[in-house]
Formats: sequence, C-alpha cells, structure tokens
Amino acid sequence: MSQPSFRSSDSVRSGKPLRFAQSLALDAPLHLELGGELPEVEVTYETWGTLSAARDNAVLVCHAISGDSHAARHDVDDDPGWWEILIGPGRPIDTDRFFVICTNVLGGCRGSTGPLSRNPDTGAPYGPDFPQVTVFDMVEVQRRALDQLGIERLAAVVGGSLGGHQALAWAVRYPERVAATVAIATSPRLTSQAIAFDVVGRNAITRDPDFADGHYAGQGKGPAVGLALARMLGHITYLSPQAMSSKFEKDRLQAADIVSDFEKKFSVGSYLAYQGERFVERFDANSYVTLSMAMDLFDLGADQAALRAHLDAARCRWLVLSYTSDWLFPPEQSQEIVRALLAQPDPVKVSYCNVTSDCGHDAFLLEDDIDRYGELIRSFLDPEAGAQGQLFVDPDPAQLLQTRRVDYDHIAARVGPGDSVLDLGCGSGELLERLARAAPATGRRALGVELSEYALLECVRRGVEVIHGDIDNGLELFEDDAFDVVILSHTLQAVRDVERVIAEMLRVGRRAIVSFPNAAHETQRQRLGEEGLAPQASLLESHRWSDPPPLRVLSIRDFERFCVDRGVAIGDRVALDTRAGAVVEDEVNLRADLAIFVLERSAS
Amino acid sequence: MSQPSFRSSDSVRSGKPLRFAQSLALDAPLHLELGGELPEVEVTYETWGTLSAARDNAVLVCHAISGDSHAARHDVDDDPGWWEILIGPGRPIDTDRFFVICTNVLGGCRGSTGPLSRNPDTGAPYGPDFPQVTVFDMVEVQRRALDQLGIERLAAVVGGSLGGHQALAWAVRYPERVAATVAIATSPRLTSQAIAFDVVGRNAITRDPDFADGHYAGQGKGPAVGLALARMLGHITYLSPQAMSSKFEKDRLQAADIVSDFEKKFSVGSYLAYQGERFVERFDANSYVTLSMAMDLFDLGADQAALRAHLDAARCRWLVLSYTSDWLFPPEQSQEIVRALLAQPDPVKVSYCNVTSDCGHDAFLLEDDIDRYGELIRSFLDPEAGAQGQLFVDPDPAQLLQTRRVDYDHIAARVGPGDSVLDLGCGSGELLERLARAAPATGRRALGVELSEYALLECVRRGVEVIHGDIDNGLELFEDDAFDVVILSHTLQAVRDVERVIAEMLRVGRRAIVSFPNAAHETQRQRLGEEGLAPQASLLESHRWSDPPPLRVLSIRDFERFCVDRGVAIGDRVALDTRAGAVVEDEVNLRADLAIFVLERSAS
Repeated sequence: MSQPSFRSSDSVRSGKPLRFAQSLALDAPLHLELGGELPEVEVTYETWGTLSAARDNAVLVCHAISGDSHAARHDVDDDPGWWEILIGPGRPIDTDRFFVICTNVLGGCRGSTGPLSRNPDTGAPYGPDFPQVTVFDMVEVQRRALDQLGIERLAAVVGGSLGGHQALAWAVRYPERVAATVAIATSPRLTSQAIAFDVVGRNAITRDPDFADGHYAGQGKGPAVGLALARMLGHITYLSPQAMSSKFEKDRLQAADIVSDFEKKFSVGSYLAYQGERFVERFDANSYVTLSMAMDLFDLGADQAALRAHLDAARCRWLVLSYTSDWLFPPEQSQEIVRALLAQPDPVKVSYCNVTSDCGHDAFLLEDDIDRYGELIRSFLDPEAGAQGQLFVDPDPAQLLQTRRVDYDHIAARVGPGDSVLDLGCGSGELLERLARAAPATGRRALGVELSEYALLECVRRGVEVIHGDIDNGLELFEDDAFDVVILSHTLQAVRDVERVIAEMLRVGRRAIVSFPNAAHETQRQRLGEEGLAPQASLLESHRWSDPPPLRVLSIRDFERFCVDRGVAIGDRVALDTRAGAVVEDEVNLRADLAIFVLERSAS
Repeated sequence: MSQPSFRSSDSVRSGKPLRFAQSLALDAPLHLELGGELPEVEVTYETWGTLSAARDNAVLVCHAISGDSHAARHDVDDDPGWWEILIGPGRPIDTDRFFVICTNVLGGCRGSTGPLSRNPDTGAPYGPDFPQVTVFDMVEVQRRALDQLGIERLAAVVGGSLGGHQALAWAVRYPERVAATVAIATSPRLTSQAIAFDVVGRNAITRDPDFADGHYAGQGKGPAVGLALARMLGHITYLSPQAMSSKFEKDRLQAADIVSDFEKKFSVGSYLAYQGERFVERFDANSYVTLSMAMDLFDLGADQAALRAHLDAARCRWLVLSYTSDWLFPPEQSQEIVRALLAQPDPVKVSYCNVTSDCGHDAFLLEDDIDRYGELIRSFLDPEAGAQGQLFVDPDPAQLLQTRRVDYDHIAARVGPGDSVLDLGCGSGELLERLARAAPATGRRALGVELSEYALLECVRRGVEVIHGDIDNGLELFEDDAFDVVILSHTLQAVRDVERVIAEMLRVGRRAIVSFPNAAHETQRQRLGEEGLAPQASLLESHRWSDPPPLRVLSIRDFERFCVDRGVAIGDRVALDTRAGAVVEDEVNLRADLAIFVLERSAS
C-alpha cells in the first residue's frame, strides 16, 4: 500500500498534484483560537471566472473534510473537481457571472499549512506537533488570504458539511464581509452519533501501532490500516441506507476483484476496502485527525439560546439546504439553524429547503437531486438568472385555484403597509410577492411556508423568502410574536388540527387571516337539499369529495361557533361571492361562497 | 487491559462464571452447513421454571451476538440476566407457566463449543481454525440438545437480533417442532449498511497486529484494540440517534473519568472507550468474528419470492416485533417477513407491531417500551394470561362509536361462514372476534390492520390476528386475492386516497365492504339548510368539524356516483337508520344516516 508522499516543495501536499493551484503566504503569524500561533501560514487556492471591477462578485466555496482547492475543472483537459456539478460556466454557481475561489483548509494536506508542512522551529514537518486548529481558525486564514487578494466583501460563501461549518463561521465572525450564505448539509454542531463515529475513526488511527503517536513520517510507513478504517466508516455515514441497498443488495456476495488485505467477502466490503486503500494514498493521517477533531469541536451552541447568541451577529441573506436521507447531518439540525435565524431581532432574509433525496449526506456532492438544490442555489445567488431558468410546473393543481385573485385582494387590503407577513401554504409566492410590492418603502418582511419543493423554487426565483415545511408541524420554527399577520388561505380544510394551527397562528402573529369556502352557501344547500350531494370542500371547480387528502367542510357559522367556543376573537370578517367578485353584506352564511376572517388574540 | 481468560475446565468460556449453567455434549458429530464437521460439541444452557408432564410448555430463548445462556436470574442472589425484564415469575415470558431454556450459541465463547474450545484433533484450542458456522448450525445444535433433554416440541421460540435470526431458522427448518415464534428486531438478512459496519468491525480485529491471523492465544495478548473498536462501532449501531443525544448531548465535553488509552475527549467517547474495554475482558475475538460473519451470511432471501420459498415451510403462529427507531434492523425488514408470512399458501396466524420507541435496536433489551412489547409477548404466548392483564384504554375515542353494533350486524350478515376477512382499522378487534366466533367450524381467517399500538394489544389479547399499519400505505403487505372480504367500517372519511384504498381493497379481497355516515341524511340536510351548519363527517355524537384529522363528508349518492365513474361494481347495499336500529328501504339518501356497500370487481 502506498503511503502519503512527503515532498519538499513549497506546496507540501499528499496525493495528486493540482495543476492550477496557486498559493500565497499570510503576511503575519496566525494566532489560534485554542491558543498558540502558527508563525508561517501558506494558503493553496484555485479560482474560476473574473473578479469584477467593483470586486463585488466573489464567491468563496468551502470544502469538506477530504476535499481540496480543486472544486471544478479549469479547462477541458483538467481533472474534474469535487463540485463540478455546481461550479462552471452556466452552472448554478456560474463562473461567467461570479469570481469563484476555493482554498484548501488550514490543517489539510493538499497544499495549505497543515501537519505535513515544515515547522519553522524545527525545520521538519509538524506531524503530531501541529496544533489543534478550529473551524474559526480556518475561516480566519481564508479572510486574511482574501484581504491579501484585495477582496473585501464576498457576494456569497457556500459550503457543505465541514464546508457548511466554515460558511456559518464566516457569517457569524465577519458579518460585514458576507452578503449571502449558502449552508448545505450542515449543523450548529455535530450530533453525538456523528462524534461517536469520528471518535472510533480517530481511535482506529491513533491506536494503529504504525501511527507511532503521530511520528510516522520518518519510519517509512504510516497508520495505513487505521486511516483506511476511519475512511471506511466515514463512507458508511456519507451514504444513505437506501443508497447502500441499491448499490450492494442485489449481488451482495459478488465482491469486486481488488487487491487488498481487508475483508472482501461482500460487495460492500470490497467497496469499503477500495475506498479505504485509495484514501491512504492521498491523505495524511495527522491531517485527518486534526480536521476530524476541528469538526467535532465546532459548536455554535447546544440549544437555541446559545445558537442565537452566535447567529444574531450575522447580517447576510441565507439559503439553508438539508437532504431528507442525510443521517449524519440530519435535517433537524439545519432546521435549528433556520429557527435561530428566523428569531433574529433584526430580521434577515432566510430560505430553507429539505431536499428530497435518497443519497444521504453525499447528496450535496451528487447530481441526483441537482434539479432542485442546484437551481435553488442558482436562483438564490442571482434571482435574475433564476427567473430565466426553466420553470417547473407545480404538480399540485390545487395551487391554481381560480378564485385566488379575489381572495388575495381582500386579504391584501387587511395587511397594513408596515405589517410583516407569514403566509402558510404560500405556493409559488404570488400573494407574498404582491404584498412585498405593495409596500416597497417599508421593506416589509414577507415570508412563506410551503411543502412543495417545486413551488419553493418558484418562490426563491421571485425573490420571496420561503421555509420548507408542513403547516401541521411547521410553526415550531417561529417565535411568539414573530409576525404582524399570519395568513392561511383556503387551506384550513386540510390542516390536521384546526385548533392547534389557529392557536399557533395567533402565537406567531398578532393577527391571523383565515379564508375558507363556505359549505352553507346557497349552491351547497341546494346541492345537498335537492340533489343529495355533499357540500364541496374546495372552491376548485374540479374538486371531488374523494380527492386526496381528505378535506373537512365548514360553514361561516361553524367557524364563528368555533371561535366563540375556543375564545378566539374575530377582529374583522369579509364574505365574498367569488363568482360575482363581490362582497356579501347580508345573509352572509347563505350568500357567500368564501369567507375571510381576521382573528385576534382574545383579551383573556 | 485484561485479556480473554482461557480456562481448562470442560466449560471453556471467557468472562464472568455462570453459576447456574449446565452443559451437555451432543451424542454425535455435527455436520456443518458450509461443509466439514465438529467431532465434539458441547452446549451450555440454563433453564427456568418446570417442564410440564406433557412436555408442552418449553420456550426456547435465543441470544444476540454478545449474549449468553444467562437470560435471567435464578435466585435473588444471582446476577441479573440480559433479558431479566422479560423472563421470570409473572413476567411476560412467565416462568410460573413456561419452562424456559436458553443455550449459548455454537461459535460463542460462553461455554458452548466455539473458537476457545479444544480441537480434539490437536488438543489445543481451535482459535482461527474453528470452522465458519451458520445460524442454521446454531439451531441444529439447539435442536439436538433439546432432543437429548427429551423436549420434542417447543411452545415457542423467542429471540431478538441474531436471536431473531435463530427463531426464524427454527420456524423454517423444524416447522413441526415449533408452535409459536416471536421474531424481534430481526430481518430476513442484514441490510448492506449493517454488513458494512460488521465488515469494518472485523477489519479492525483481523488487521490488528496482535490478532496474529487469529493465533493470539499463545502470545499472551489478543487484538484488544481491534475488538474494542468493533464493539464501539456495534454500540453506536445499537443506539438510536435520539438515545445518543439524550445521553451525551448536554455535557458533551464532560467525559467520564475512566482509565483507557482510547480517546476520552467527549462524553460519548469515554462511553465508547468503556464499552470497548469491558467487552475485551469478556469476549473472544475469534468468536466475535465467527458470530458476526454468521450473522452477515444469514440470508432468507434477497426478495419476496426467495423469502417466501423459505417461510412457506413454517407452520407456527407468529408474533413479529420491530422498533420504530431501530436503524440497524429497520422496521421495513420485519415488514418484509410479515408480508411473506401473510402470503403463505396455507395461512398461519401472524401478528405484527412496530413498537414506538426512542431506544433503537437496543429497545428489545430495555424496559422503556415494555408496556407494549412485553405485554404483546405475554398475550401472544398465553392469551388467557393476557386477558387478565391490565387493560389499556384506547386513547382514540373515535374507536368507541356507539353505532358500531348495528353497523356490525349488517356487515357480519354479508360475510359468508367460510369467508376469510381483513378488517381495515379494526380497533380492538371486536368485529373480527365476532366474525371468528360466528364460524367456529370453518376456522375462518380473520385478520385486522390497526394503527394504535394499544388497540393492537387488545386484539392480541382477544386472540385476534392483527397487523400494525396505516391503511393509507398498509395494503402493500397483502397479496392479490388474499381475502374473500375486506372491510372498511366508518373509516372512508379519513383515508387519504379513496380511489386507491378502494382499488387496493378490491385487489386484496374478492369483495369489499365499506360503511360510512350519509351526509345527505335528513338531519344533515336540515342542519345545513336551516341552521347553516355543515354536515357532520362522523356518527360519533361528540365529533366536531374542527376535530383532527380532517374528515371528508359524502352522501350515499356521492358514493354511488364515484362507483359508477370509477367502474366499481356495487354488489349489495344496505342503508340504516342507526338511531332506530332499522334498515331503510325507501328514499335511502334522505332517510339513512349510515350506508354499507358491498363492492365487487367490475367485469371489465
């Protein structure tokens, strides 16, 4: 098995050479977060695209534990980079538009200063004497490198996994220097389960006799077995169980024919053996231990209070992405970030999507789900470009309710110019865009909650902030009194627990606006009384009683009774005849087919 | 670190002595499934309770990878066993009623023949020369030991994890000797993810230089680091992420003060270090590799066809249990077993519960969820004892619909004496018990599907077969034409997709019986027409439009139109006035408050 190569060039690195990498030396020693300093720091980086004259189009891309500066190819003959699918001309991070820069992290082994680098005090490589660095140290190095390159402010910082930790650290530590952050498959800190896997991986390395307490450089061999075991373990956690099944379940005993001293009985075993062996050729064990520990030590807070104390400093726009099958960085952790961002006392724009994926943590490096997450990144970074992209048609026709426009007029009339608005089930963001346009001067906060990923993408294309979630359990992301108005338009029929949703709306908003079709409209009474057909639960012409999901029916009187029984104060009510486009003033429970209620908290 | 102890007594074993263990030698060599034979096989076992004169109350308990024969204490001074919560006087596996026996598995290191045993050919311990045994070999040894003890037939075989694999193997290999099988947290075969973890664990052991190709016995030290790493990894997979969070998240940097050369920076790390170190004291590495490989090789089939080819042989009653947070043996795998059992050409009784739990794979060894899974085992093993147990009150009052009895009379009248029945949303099994009692001679198959774990327990107490599942996605467990009649009583209002559920009912059953409240009943017409209140979606007096979940409303005419539109043939229909307890013959859509339809497949 080949060992990490130790080269004596300026750019000491293991593995394959990086043809387009450049390097710079920081102009002063680096003081480390956990104490001590590094007298000399070198940064290896690659760039794509052209820095604008205004120097305002720089996007910093941050890599994960085993990545490097080679995020994308530089010419047709170049090796593909680790984020080839996202970075390039016309790609979601469009190098025709942005100047993209990616640096190898501090502590890494692909050029930037790390355990393989020469310790100026001894003249020999640091090895195990390399100090423990943190994610904030990595980011400090990037910041100083950008200073030296003359880039004061980033259009965006983008990263997944450990790269996402760096993106978070940037937004928190240098708020004035980041216009937008894309935090992907990341977390405020690792779960205990994720740390546990890292602990076992590090133990495999450090208890490998060939590790020699980290002083393996001189002995001609390193902890190849331990490092390979750590990498095998990592690979398991990067893949979803579904992905593993589809790769290996069919021919589980047909192992690949590879040369390895590791077990090769099962096909999944030969895959792991291969991944382990290859990793040893390109990665340094001390570096792996350093980066893995930096990841485990990253901690923006154990609870919401602590997390907010960090995130409140950030002033950028946010796009947070998680993947449904990612169990290493589970979506709930991204949702904790979103929750904290939504609670910022001086609100910033936040959008979040939990991308449906079978690919596990690796999803952010794979093409499988790029139709959603790639396009979300494109539209978030550059809404104009997003709007030119292929439009997705929302698969849910209920979104296209013909009567919405009448509905919207009267809802909009009940939202004050300075009111902040949360729209539950916001679809593609039409109402929110309209409300935002109606109050350009106030910079109204207008945020939506939506379940469909495609509708969500339309929102981001419109520049509307949107949070991916299910109303039935989605309001827990929002603080008390977070909005002036919370809207639930033509959706009450479908929510699981009416009482809870309305209570939640009045917790999160000072007022709630609820619209629903009136089951006691004269056409419905006639339908039931004369034809013996049940009232319809939706104003959508095509709706049938048997359509999924089940929808409840209610009349204006039912709703009023409900409010009385539950102590919900009705502040205002408008009843509409949507076919005539008119407001109904008399006999509303007979003449109106749609009602809009403004609810307020009761005095009690 | 202490090493496995090698003793020269007849019962060679590592770890703590077993005071109440007995042992017997098989009376002839054992031929192994993968070839070769073991000339001498010793079986270490423990027993509790008294074998009945008829020898019909023996329950075999099978242990998991790190278990042994000591499943429960034998007297107050005895050490607690690994399944103390389940086995003992008055416990779910009641030793006042059953004669319980637990054997250490073949290949283990706690008394039964394994790598620590003397190889009669050489006079020295087998070590790495111990042949690879399989789960079927383990079961064959148990079968022969029971033969020698004069136990011909087991009242039940019970096991979780690898113990569940043994239980499955018993039911398949010796169908005439097993009356009932309880298969817990197990699978037809491991997932690729689970195998991957085992592969890394075995690599950690076999690539530990102190493993010495398994010949570590003579060198005074074994692969302590590798075995500890494998155990650490095992522990991560046994716990759920939730359980890990609640154990370690709060004080993640406050590691326990233990003596270990493993990393102890994080509290979860010190836990793993401790578990790893303790395991090395009581377990033999060659034995671990042997058992782990036996588990990975266990394979009742990659798909349903292959699985059925095995399970069709089984003739016992079944209780299958999985745990919602078990990601090592995910519930879907238990459901595959259930699906195959339900498809047996000559049906056997099967009940299944996916126990709600935060405890992960370990749940079956822990007390947390015993109120459900323990009581299910008790009632399944001995329905009489179950019926005497504390009755759980179903938390869903909708189950207690007053009108059910009238409903049931007319449904029961439409089920022929020989008809097999599937009741969707069967509640506590009242209708099914009634249908079973109505046809004692035919031995009618009557099975329910139910979502509530507590209602499910009531079913098992009544001796009613029941499958835990959600109707909206639960019928996939059932084959085409599996039943004569499929019933959906007063539940149509809540199913997500009416068309799909009815299509599924008519796929699985030759006929479907559907009952629902009629929204066009005169009281409902009056309610809407005169009072302006929406029709009610349930006959339950207390039901309100706003109650969760949303319920659709429909009339008899609506349903008839639906059937015509969708090409569903109506075989029979009865309309009821449930308050009067009478059948309505005329003006049914006006006079009936409940309708029962018998649906048949259309000729087209």
